[in-house]
Amino acid sequence: MREETSAILNALRRVVGTDHVLTDPVDVRAAALDGRGRRQGNALAVVRPASTEETAAVMRVANEFDLAVIAQGGNTGNVGGSTPEPGLPSEAVNRTIILQTSRMRRILNVDPINNTVTVEAGVVLQNVQEAARNVNRLFPLSLAAEGSAVIGGVIATNAGGVHVLRYGMARRMVLGLKVVLASGDILDLMRSLRKDNAGYALKEIFIGSEGTLGIVTEAVLALEPLPQRMLSAWVTLAEVRSVDVLFARLEAQFGPSLTAFELIGRSPLTSLTAVTGMKPPVPAADWQVLLDISVWQNDDEETRERLEALLGDLMEEGVLTNGAVSQSDSDREAFWRCRETIPSSVKRQGGNVKHDISVPRSVLSTFIVDTFAALQTAFPGVEPSVFGHYGDGNLHFNVGPGSVAFPHEEAIHRLVHDRVIAAKGSIAAEHGVGSLKTDELVRTKAPEEIAAMRALKRAFDPQNRLNPGRIVRLEE
Amino acid sequence: MREETSAILNALRRVVGTDHVLTDPVDVRAAALDGRGRRQGNALAVVRPASTEETAAVMRVANEFDLAVIAQGGNTGNVGGSTPEPGLPSEAVNRTIILQTSRMRRILNVDPINNTVTVEAGVVLQNVQEAARNVNRLFPLSLAAEGSAVIGGVIATNAGGVHVLRYGMARRMVLGLKVVLASGDILDLMRSLRKDNAGYALKEIFIGSEGTLGIVTEAVLALEPLPQRMLSAWVTLAEVRSVDVLFARLEAQFGPSLTAFELIGRSPLTSLTAVTGMKPPVPAADWQVLLDISVWQNDDEETRERLEALLGDLMEEGVLTNGAVSQSDSDREAFWRCRETIPSSVKRQGGNVKHDISVPRSVLSTFIVDTFAALQTAFPGVEPSVFGHYGDGNLHFNVGPGSVAFPHEEAIHRLVHDRVIAAKGSIAAEHGVGSLKTDELVRTKAPEEIAAMRALKRAFDPQNRLNPGRIVRLEE
Repeated sequence: MREETSAILNALRRVVGTDHVLTDPVDVRAAALDGRGRRQGNALAVVRPASTEETAAVMRVANEFDLAVIAQGGNTGNVGGSTPEPGLPSEAVNRTIILQTSRMRRILNVDPINNTVTVEAGVVLQNVQEAARNVNRLFPLSLAAEGSAVIGGVIATNAGGVHVLRYGMARRMVLGLKVVLASGDILDLMRSLRKDNAGYALKEIFIGSEGTLGIVTEAVLALEPLPQRMLSAWVTLAEVRSVDVLFARLEAQFGPSLTAFELIGRSPLTSLTAVTGMKPPVPAADWQVLLDISVWQNDDEETRERLEALLGDLMEEGVLTNGAVSQSDSDREAFWRCRETIPSSVKRQGGNVKHDISVPRSVLSTFIVDTFAALQTAFPGVEPSVFGHYGDGNLHFNVGPGSVAFPHEEAIHRLVHDRVIAAKGSIAAEHGVGSLKTDELVRTKAPEEIAAMRALKRAFDPQNRLNPGRIVRLEE
Repeated sequence: MREETSAILNALRRVVGTDHVLTDPVDVRAAALDGRGRRQGNALAVVRPASTEETAAVMRVANEFDLAVIAQGGNTGNVGGSTPEPGLPSEAVNRTIILQTSRMRRILNVDPINNTVTVEAGVVLQNVQEAARNVNRLFPLSLAAEGSAVIGGVIATNAGGVHVLRYGMARRMVLGLKVVLASGDILDLMRSLRKDNAGYALKEIFIGSEGTLGIVTEAVLALEPLPQRMLSAWVTLAEVRSVDVLFARLEAQFGPSLTAFELIGRSPLTSLTAVTGMKPPVPAADWQVLLDISVWQNDDEETRERLEALLGDLMEEGVLTNGAVSQSDSDREAFWRCRETIPSSVKRQGGNVKHDISVPRSVLSTFIVDTFAALQTAFPGVEPSVFGHYGDGNLHFNVGPGSVAFPHEEAIHRLVHDRVIAAKGSIAAEHGVGSLKTDELVRTKAPEEIAAMRALKRAFDPQNRLNPGRIVRLEE
């Protein structure tokens, strides 16, 4: 074995250079710890190719020596999808490598006429946003981890965030891809076109496949016209069902200018204030909404007047109980800081049992009410801590406090997920499946759908070499 | 053989009922003639299942008797993709059936809170648009054949049209699908979610697969907020390169309110006037643009003033030479009627050699100038007749007059397509591949991409039973 290990490492070193095959246990364990710090895996080495060609050559080494390859970008995921499985036997560890994209960090092209940017997989999300802003364009994908998440991971997980309502998930922004296949072949789909029906939409297969079907090494991303201004409003609802009325009236009045619409329960704000002393713009109610209106023309006063008039009407109608509209960019930032500080506040209070679910908007408020009640009956003392992207039907439907909820973690997952499935929802709305939800996927999907996923995996990775066991397991 | 034919027909009749297995040669030949009336195929029968379950049962008969199944919706395609190949030997004809979705025409649900509509595959596109409008929503997919094209075909071809710039192609509107697989299994992906990362994005595989990987029988489609008003403008450009400036300025000013942007050459307007007597809103120039601005708030005067001011500026700057802004809905309709009457006018003048191409917007005007010149050098007397969707980089880059161009059809295709590929474009932007472009696909794609398409086909249709030979052939 030791001899073969040397042969593997030498082959990898020949491809990427000695400096870029890390075998020091400290380095390997750091790379093998998942983004939430809960799952410590292990691997033979961390390999850092500098290019698509080197990535392909690493895959050929993997084929020669029968290695498993875990692609890793910023390692900011929540579902344990980009690190080796904890507890692998040492023979398996010795045949597992972590392939990091961090050396592929060039922005290759910015084209403000075609509204596209071409990047390597290891470019940090925030750097893409900045490159777009530098040419007066918007790269609209925005999420909490944007300072460390990289484009390869964003694409591999089909990341979401707070602007999906208007701009869609990562999938919608990907015009072109370069992918290293399990075979070591390079699939060059680097087109920057908005219309392309020349054969099967191969790129769609790799987006959201979490490194199990191929390794994304480059991408062409679509940019959007940059809004000249944005307004935010923070409003409190008379009751949770008021959210449907508020959303419909805003959308009718503002159309695509409504670019974010976040629903926030009372419990996350209680955590926020308890931990940080921060207070929301208006006193907390059971339910509140944080929304953005984007303005392309230079008419912010006009839009603000229109927004204030609409919110005033809704207050008179008893839909809303209170509200504030941002009067400056620093107001806006303060509103959003409340929203963005929720997860860390909850974590500092001891965390909770997390779900990342979506249901059709038309059943969302009923789902919340009924699932709250069912949880409190089944697990006395729990308190749901809910916030998320109403506009997309996507809620982070978490259940705390940790001290009460964690002992029932599996049962709570099951209760929530069963209700999600009954509501024709998704148990993995934006964070993906990774390692944590593979069993739930099999439990909650029709056998035909799992079979079709396996057919796809077999077609593109018949040796089960890429991120094995994630999304679907072949061996069942 | 005759005995087996009877057995096949009886099995099909048991599934869908005797009335819905058409074998009269008149009926069969009508269904086997492609949408442009140029390719007459033949088949054993036309089969019309009434439901997903019947469609699945037809597929099981196809498996039992080794039949090829050509799914057919409105048969409005341009690339011969939904009718049997002409000239098949009679043994093959006797093992080919056309499966029409026309009896699956129910609108199953309209949900104005979730902004979705659920339909069977045979529902006519226009009926979906109307169902949306009835609840004050927009189904934005719009194309010339919308009165006869059906949703199943729209999805199977990932149809485009004039609003892709703002709303995307069919793919972006499809939230859920029900698909009958080659095996006869039913894949139920009928979710109505905007965020769903629970495993591979299987639905994406079938969208745009032209009936070669599965048969779409139901879909959940996303609706958009309905604009309260729309304005159109028709402007003439100082030169073709002015189009880039016009587009950038409009997008910066109007953002997502810019919902259509069509570039039109002189030649199609000459045909229009010669054949119909219709004249464009302002005298024809070498290049003109027809654009739409959508208004959600009730402020049409304000937006019109802003649009007129911008166009006035561009005229002073020498970007535009003339222009008109619609003053009423009937103006708008008249502007668009000019655009929409172009294809039939050109056809009545004898037609031309057609291309449906896209290139990045940043090279589009150069592509036009250079390809015009190359065509006129190589084929003296030809005159390109170009119009299309600049916003998407998609042009109908046609070459007439027919009398001069048709004798050189293959060579003209090759010249145009080679230049498209050199510009990193697509030779099949919105009409798909069908039968007409399979050879060009193989000629212009990298072998790795064709191989990946074949791997996908083999994974979902290993017997090559669904629309065989379309998009990719397995036997090469």
